[in-house]
Amino acid sequence: MFTYILNTGIKTPIYEQLYDHIKEDILNNVIPKGEKLPSKRRLAAHLKISVLTVETAYEQLISEGYIYSKPKRGYYVNDIQNSLSLAPSDIDTIPVRENQTRSDYIYEFKTNTVDTENFPFSVWAKLMREVLRDKDKELLNKSETKGLYSLRTEIAKYLKAYRGISCQPEQIIVGAGSEYLINLIIQLLGENKKYAVENPGYHKIAKILQAYNTDTEYLPLDEQGVSMEHLIYSDVNVLHVSPSHQFPTGIITPIKRRYEILKWASEKNGYIIEDDYDSEFRYSGKPIPALQSLDTAGRVIYMNTFAKNLAPSLRISYMVLPWELVYTFDRDFRFYSNTVSCFEQYTLTKFMEGGYFERHINRMRNIYKTRINTIKDCISSLNKNITIHGENTGLHIVLEFPEGTDIKLLTDKAKEKGIFLTDINSYYVKGRHHKPAIVLGYTGINNENIIKAFDLLKEVW
Amino acid sequence: MFTYILNTGIKTPIYEQLYDHIKEDILNNVIPKGEKLPSKRRLAAHLKISVLTVETAYEQLISEGYIYSKPKRGYYVNDIQNSLSLAPSDIDTIPVRENQTRSDYIYEFKTNTVDTENFPFSVWAKLMREVLRDKDKELLNKSETKGLYSLRTEIAKYLKAYRGISCQPEQIIVGAGSEYLINLIIQLLGENKKYAVENPGYHKIAKILQAYNTDTEYLPLDEQGVSMEHLIYSDVNVLHVSPSHQFPTGIITPIKRRYEILKWASEKNGYIIEDDYDSEFRYSGKPIPALQSLDTAGRVIYMNTFAKNLAPSLRISYMVLPWELVYTFDRDFRFYSNTVSCFEQYTLTKFMEGGYFERHINRMRNIYKTRINTIKDCISSLNKNITIHGENTGLHIVLEFPEGTDIKLLTDKAKEKGIFLTDINSYYVKGRHHKPAIVLGYTGINNENIIKAFDLLKEVW
Repeated sequence: MFTYILNTGIKTPIYEQLYDHIKEDILNNVIPKGEKLPSKRRLAAHLKISVLTVETAYEQLISEGYIYSKPKRGYYVNDIQNSLSLAPSDIDTIPVRENQTRSDYIYEFKTNTVDTENFPFSVWAKLMREVLRDKDKELLNKSETKGLYSLRTEIAKYLKAYRGISCQPEQIIVGAGSEYLINLIIQLLGENKKYAVENPGYHKIAKILQAYNTDTEYLPLDEQGVSMEHLIYSDVNVLHVSPSHQFPTGIITPIKRRYEILKWASEKNGYIIEDDYDSEFRYSGKPIPALQSLDTAGRVIYMNTFAKNLAPSLRISYMVLPWELVYTFDRDFRFYSNTVSCFEQYTLTKFMEGGYFERHINRMRNIYKTRINTIKDCISSLNKNITIHGENTGLHIVLEFPEGTDIKLLTDKAKEKGIFLTDINSYYVKGRHHKPAIVLGYTGINNENIIKAFDLLKEVW
Repeated sequence: MFTYILNTGIKTPIYEQLYDHIKEDILNNVIPKGEKLPSKRRLAAHLKISVLTVETAYEQLISEGYIYSKPKRGYYVNDIQNSLSLAPSDIDTIPVRENQTRSDYIYEFKTNTVDTENFPFSVWAKLMREVLRDKDKELLNKSETKGLYSLRTEIAKYLKAYRGISCQPEQIIVGAGSEYLINLIIQLLGENKKYAVENPGYHKIAKILQAYNTDTEYLPLDEQGVSMEHLIYSDVNVLHVSPSHQFPTGIITPIKRRYEILKWASEKNGYIIEDDYDSEFRYSGKPIPALQSLDTAGRVIYMNTFAKNLAPSLRISYMVLPWELVYTFDRDFRFYSNTVSCFEQYTLTKFMEGGYFERHINRMRNIYKTRINTIKDCISSLNKNITIHGENTGLHIVLEFPEGTDIKLLTDKAKEKGIFLTDINSYYVKGRHHKPAIVLGYTGINNENIIKAFDLLKEVW
C-alpha cells in the first residue's frame, strides 16, 4: 500500500498531491508497469482521505495516460516507455536576457522613424473612447477578412481624392503592416513567379521575398527609376517599385517610364507592386498619378501604410488589388482572419470620416517642409558644395557630395558628435551610388535639433 | 499660343487647371511630341496670370515627365509612347458590393465563435483608458519584433503557472493571430520540410500550409491521437497536433503517446507544432502537461491564442520557440515588425498583471461547464442513445449516434428550426468518422437558448 505524506496546510489540493506522488513513482519505476493500484476505497481508508479525492487523482492519472482502468477489475500502471530519458526540462535556468536596443545618438537623421511628437494624440484618444462606448459588441467580433468595410470605404475615398485612384472597397485589403501584405501577395500570386526589387532599395522587401524562398532579382536604376533595359531582358514577372519617390534615391519616375513599366507588365502578364509609402508628403505641386491610376490592364497591386503618416505602432497597411486578384482572393483566401484589431480599425475609420486624417497630413506636410527648409539653410551655411535631391516629396532627402568625398569619414565624425547619418551605399546590394551621398531622414528630429546637429557638423566637417 | 479658359471661381487652383489642360492636350496629341512650349513669361501674359502660376504648372508637368526643359532654351513636350492605348481607367463604374454574411440560424452550435457576452468589457475599457493616459509616447512607437517584453513576461508566468511550461520571454513571439504565426514558422523552418496535419482536423492549418505550397500530408488518428504507425513510416518532419484536445474529435493524447511523439521528433530532428488552443478550458482535474513541458530535445513549438479565451477581434496569439529556433529567429528574422498594435499589447499586459485574465478564464470555465451540463441534461431527455465525448476539456463536444443514423437528415431537420449543427465528417479530408457524429460548439449560445434549441430538436428528431 502507498504511504504518502499529504499536507493539508498548503495550497495544493490533496488530490493533486496524491496525483503528483503516484505519477512520480510511476516515472521513477517505483511502481512498475502493469502493477495494479489499490482500490479507491482501500487507498482512501489507508491515507485517511475521502474516496472522491482518490477518484479525482486516479482520473487525472488516467486522462494523462499514466494508469488505465479495467472495468470491474481496477486500476493498472501503463507502460511509460522512454519516459526516463525524457525527464522534465530545466530549461528555465538558462540565463538569457534580450538586448535592449539603446541608441548612442542624440541627433538621429533616420528614415524609419515617424514624428510621434506631433501625433494628434488627444483626438485619437477621444475617438478611441467613443469607439469603446459605442461599439461594444462589434468590438469583440472579428472583422471581415479584408478589413472593416467602413474603413475600406474611407480608404477608397481618400485614394480617389488624393491619389487619383479609383477603386472599390472590395479591392482593398487591410492588414497588420506592409510586410504582412507582402506575405499575402506571395501566396496570392502563387508558384513560379520571379520577383524583382530595386537596387538600391528598401532591404526588407527583398528579405521577406527571400524568407519565402522566392526567386528574387535585384534590378538597377537609371535616373528615371528602374532600368527598362534590365527589366525587359530579365525573366522577372513581379516587380516591386516605388515610382512616386524611390527609396533611397528619391527618384520620381516620369510619366513615360510609368507607361513603359505598365506596358511591360501587360505584355508579360506580370504584376507591379507599387509601394506608395510616402506619397502623401509632397511639398510642391500636386501628387504625381500613381501607376495604379494609369493601369487599364489590371497589373498593379497598390500598397500604402498608415505607419508612415500616423504611427508605426498602429500596424495598419492596405493594398488595392486588381480585379483578377480580388476574385482569386475571394475564392481561395477568405479563410484568413484579418490581422488588425477591430478596435483600431473602428478608430481609424472615425479618424478618417471626421477629416482628422486629412488635417493631420496637411499639418505634418507643413512641419516637414519647414524642416527641409531648415536643412537647406544649414547645408548652404556649411559651404560644402553639397547638392540636395528629392526635397519635393517624401520623408527623406539625399545629399550628394563632390567626387572623391570620403563619406565614411563624414559619418564617423558625425557619430562622434552623436549624429546619425547614413551612407547611401548601405542601401545598395551591388554596385555603388554614382556620387558620394548621404541619406537624411528628418521625421524623427525637430528644427531645433536640426540646427544644433548642423552646428556640430560645422565643427568637424 | 494655348488659349485655355481658367476659372477663378472654382476650388481647383489656376496652376492645376493649366496643368490639366496642357497634360490633356499632350495625351491627346494636340500638342505633339518635341513641340516647344511658350515661355513662362509669354504664356503668363497671354492668359493674364502670374509667371509663378505658369512656372508651378510647368514644374508639375516636368516632374511627371510630360515635358522637359532644356537649359536656356525652353520647355519641350516629351515622347509619351503608348499613352493613348492606356487611357485612364474607369474601373470605378463596376458595380460590386461585397456579400455581407448574414446567418439563417437562430441557435448556432458553432465551434469558431467566442462568448463575447461575458467579456469583461468595462475592465478592458478601463485598462485601455489607463494605457491611453499613462503610455502616451510609448504607444506610438513600434514594439520589439517579438512583442512587448512586459507582455511576454506575463505570458511566460501564465504558462508556468497554468500549463507547467518553463520558458523565457525571449522564446515567446507575439503575433496577429495563429495564422500569422504559422506563416512565420514556415519561414523559420525553411525549405525541404514536409508537414503533416491531423485528419480530421482544423482545415485552416492545411490551407495555410498549402497556400505556401509546402509539401503537406494528412495523418489519420487512432483513439490516442495521431497514428504513430503512419507518422513513423511517413517522411514528414514537421507535425501539427493538438494533443490536449484534438479538434474535432476531442481526443486527449495520453502521456505514453506524447513521449512517443517527442521521441519521433527527436530522432528525426523534426519539429512538433503544438496547438494548445483551448487548453485553459478543462472542467475536471488539472490540465494535462503540454508536450512542450515534456520536451528536453527542443523539438516543440508551442502555440496558443487569446482569440479563444478573450475575444477574436483582439488578434493576439503567441508561440514559444525552442532555443535553436530562437537563435535562428534572432539572426534572420529580426527585420520583421511585430504585427500587434502596442496599444493592445499594453492593455493585455495590464489585464494579465492585474489578475483579470485569470479571473476571466475561471469565470468562463464555470459558464461553459454549466452549458455542458445543460446540454447533457437536454441530450438525456431526448432519449436517443447519444454518447457524449470530450466533455471534460475545451470548447466543443462530440455527440456520437448509433450506427446507421442519418446525420444529414438530423442536421437538415435542425436547420429547418434555425439550429446550426455540424457533421463531424465535414472535418475529414479523407475517410469518415467511425460513428455517425455531430460536433457541438457551445461558446456562442447561452443556457436559455441551448434549452430552446433542444426543445425544437425534440419536435423534429
